[in-house]
Amino acid sequence: MIIKGDILYNKDKDQFETIENGYLCIENGKVEGVYTADTLPSSYEKQSVEDHTGCLIIPGFCDTHAHAPQWSNCGMGYSLELLPWLDTYTFPIEKEFEKEAFAEHNYTRFVEALKKSGTTRISLFATRHLKATKLLVEKLEKSGLGAYVGKVNMDRNSMEGLQEETKQSLYETEQFINWVKERNPQKDALIQPIVTPRFVPSTTSELMHRLGKITEQYGCKVQSHLCENKSEIAWVKKLHPKCDSFTSVYYDYGLLPKGRTVMAHCVHNTEKELELLQKQQVYIAHSPASNINLSSGIMPLRKYLDEGQLVTLASDISGGHALSMRVNIIQAIQMSKVNQLMHPEQKAITFTEAFYLATMGSGSFFGKVGSFLPGYEADVQIIDDASLDNGLSYSVAQRVERYIYAGNDACIKEIYVRGKKSIDNSTFLD
Amino acid sequence: MIIKGDILYNKDKDQFETIENGYLCIENGKVEGVYTADTLPSSYEKQSVEDHTGCLIIPGFCDTHAHAPQWSNCGMGYSLELLPWLDTYTFPIEKEFEKEAFAEHNYTRFVEALKKSGTTRISLFATRHLKATKLLVEKLEKSGLGAYVGKVNMDRNSMEGLQEETKQSLYETEQFINWVKERNPQKDALIQPIVTPRFVPSTTSELMHRLGKITEQYGCKVQSHLCENKSEIAWVKKLHPKCDSFTSVYYDYGLLPKGRTVMAHCVHNTEKELELLQKQQVYIAHSPASNINLSSGIMPLRKYLDEGQLVTLASDISGGHALSMRVNIIQAIQMSKVNQLMHPEQKAITFTEAFYLATMGSGSFFGKVGSFLPGYEADVQIIDDASLDNGLSYSVAQRVERYIYAGNDACIKEIYVRGKKSIDNSTFLD
Repeated sequence: MIIKGDILYNKDKDQFETIENGYLCIENGKVEGVYTADTLPSSYEKQSVEDHTGCLIIPGFCDTHAHAPQWSNCGMGYSLELLPWLDTYTFPIEKEFEKEAFAEHNYTRFVEALKKSGTTRISLFATRHLKATKLLVEKLEKSGLGAYVGKVNMDRNSMEGLQEETKQSLYETEQFINWVKERNPQKDALIQPIVTPRFVPSTTSELMHRLGKITEQYGCKVQSHLCENKSEIAWVKKLHPKCDSFTSVYYDYGLLPKGRTVMAHCVHNTEKELELLQKQQVYIAHSPASNINLSSGIMPLRKYLDEGQLVTLASDISGGHALSMRVNIIQAIQMSKVNQLMHPEQKAITFTEAFYLATMGSGSFFGKVGSFLPGYEADVQIIDDASLDNGLSYSVAQRVERYIYAGNDACIKEIYVRGKKSIDNSTFLD
Repeated sequence: MIIKGDILYNKDKDQFETIENGYLCIENGKVEGVYTADTLPSSYEKQSVEDHTGCLIIPGFCDTHAHAPQWSNCGMGYSLELLPWLDTYTFPIEKEFEKEAFAEHNYTRFVEALKKSGTTRISLFATRHLKATKLLVEKLEKSGLGAYVGKVNMDRNSMEGLQEETKQSLYETEQFINWVKERNPQKDALIQPIVTPRFVPSTTSELMHRLGKITEQYGCKVQSHLCENKSEIAWVKKLHPKCDSFTSVYYDYGLLPKGRTVMAHCVHNTEKELELLQKQQVYIAHSPASNINLSSGIMPLRKYLDEGQLVTLASDISGGHALSMRVNIIQAIQMSKVNQLMHPEQKAITFTEAFYLATMGSGSFFGKVGSFLPGYEADVQIIDDASLDNGLSYSVAQRVERYIYAGNDACIKEIYVRGKKSIDNSTFLD
């Protein structure tokens, strides 16, 4: 399969590769190579081409942290900080997902929005509810998108009616993992379960300990929240006075499996915690919109990149308000500029770096995803940027930057996941 | 004329007035009153109603500072700060407007985008070109929207081919003012000329002096840029070593007419300058997206509000990347939270205050605009927020907040300016 158009992808954090009128050749769902008309191997010459001449061909976006149920209360309560926001706005909406009709309506809304957003891979918190979480998985399976989905675990300090019993929480977690794996048995299935302790304050030591065992047993990935807010960190210290740090709580309970963990936020980690994150090859889900919406703080993005942390980009719906990774790219650059205003030695990230974070950087949590280098999974967005045409000529990289800042979701013409057309814009009009 | 729906507007900076299933009664383009079914005067009972039951009825947005030609390079060059950004990206695109076909294409694009944005009043920089600026005016007249439009003056330190001769600049400014006033003779015309010295570094003392006289002679309003960037401020100091401050340069040349001036940015003003702004009742066009995109700094919004400065909200296309005032409301709140992180005693603005800035606050530069209090001009947005319905009930204020954060331009159903339907969403599909 061949897709023709104006191709852009990151070769690495600091460099775009661009090919005008290029050919993206896909075999078995993976990128075989990217060619010009002159370099296209003769074996491809007779194959039919999906011709998107004049359109931008870029990798699908990857979002390493979002809460699917919170799409329902997106935009509410941002005058509060994290802990009161959870109590006042988030837990009550999550409780609603015990009702099947509510879950059906709102997970449909979420997956439809996701399909229009340009995101092809996402790591999702659902709620604690097994039934609703299965419903979400079914809808994601139909969408053709890739997702890690977690049934949330929360057995302390939560809202009445939403808080779980420890045993039930563990039982349903295993039920969920087995159910997803049975439906999606391939080792590299697009939809996979992920172990999801909400965060330290709402999971007992017993629960965390047992979730660590489940993680090991099933070889699952893990997602949670870490050092988002100063009051949250103080609370963790109080709950676990003998532990070294917030990070070490997860570590001690086996919830930082090496190379298989994503931790949202990491705004206020100590140097020692950062060392532990690096040792465990933990992915950091940077959520710039959320961090400022909830006044959590400004993550030192440049410092983390310089130190080689595995930084990825996340919408954090609904601490973040924007599902679109276009918006989150802008927010990441903006918050990085804020950080530079505060700490002039920490230079703001470039557009190339921000685009990397939303594609190849975040994609690395999902496998070889987010680039068009050979062997990468062929997740592709076809972007029609004709509405941005001002009559002048621009490079492919300039056109992509203009699209990110001044374009909108209506420019997304088609989306491929692993080389399969999952969404075209006629779908959007349904 | 009566519009029925779920009404919200600011009574003042800190308070919304909301009426579910309310009636907005309009006479001669002005708000006569807002009523419930119970309080609707009997004289209105037989009048036909524009029935938007279930939709949100909110004031049109007002944008006090944007560059119409820069819509063409929106999203480019944000790795640079103001002065190199102007030289590298902005002046070259503005120079293109000497070509009629370029101006025709790009001002059409701009006005079409503006019509879809929810903004009903805007204060615009065009370019230095008389012909293109007239073209912009013609397109705005057809749109039904309200705008102050300025032919830009720039006779020093500018790009070759874009920089003007002082005499020609003045001659064309008067030509433009007279031409606009002849076409729009009413004192309160929706489209009005505004005196527009680009900023101190690109206008000679002679030009500023004479523009001050023109301002006085024609009773025009004035718009320019002030204290946006530290390098810019240092440059002004060098160009005008005998002047007290950047602000006083404008003042000395008669370019801060009392209550008739809007100055974009005001990020780094001294206390003495702030006093002068207050004395002259200068409107500050706060441009939060621009200020972070170009790393200009964080305007102390709370301090200005506390001091009673006339703060308004602006997109500053294309230092800012978003024409939509929805996005700029979010950006204003976010940058205000950044300011609170830096200066905890300066509290972040509330959603109510941010909405005020984009409506009643910015509207005050255009007259009695931006509220539905009696006597205000009836600029109205009809918002269909059905796509945000999650099955729960929310107050009108909560629905508006959800719309701002999680809605999009497709929710805008109709727009009225001075009680006249200017745009409905079928237009958008043209």
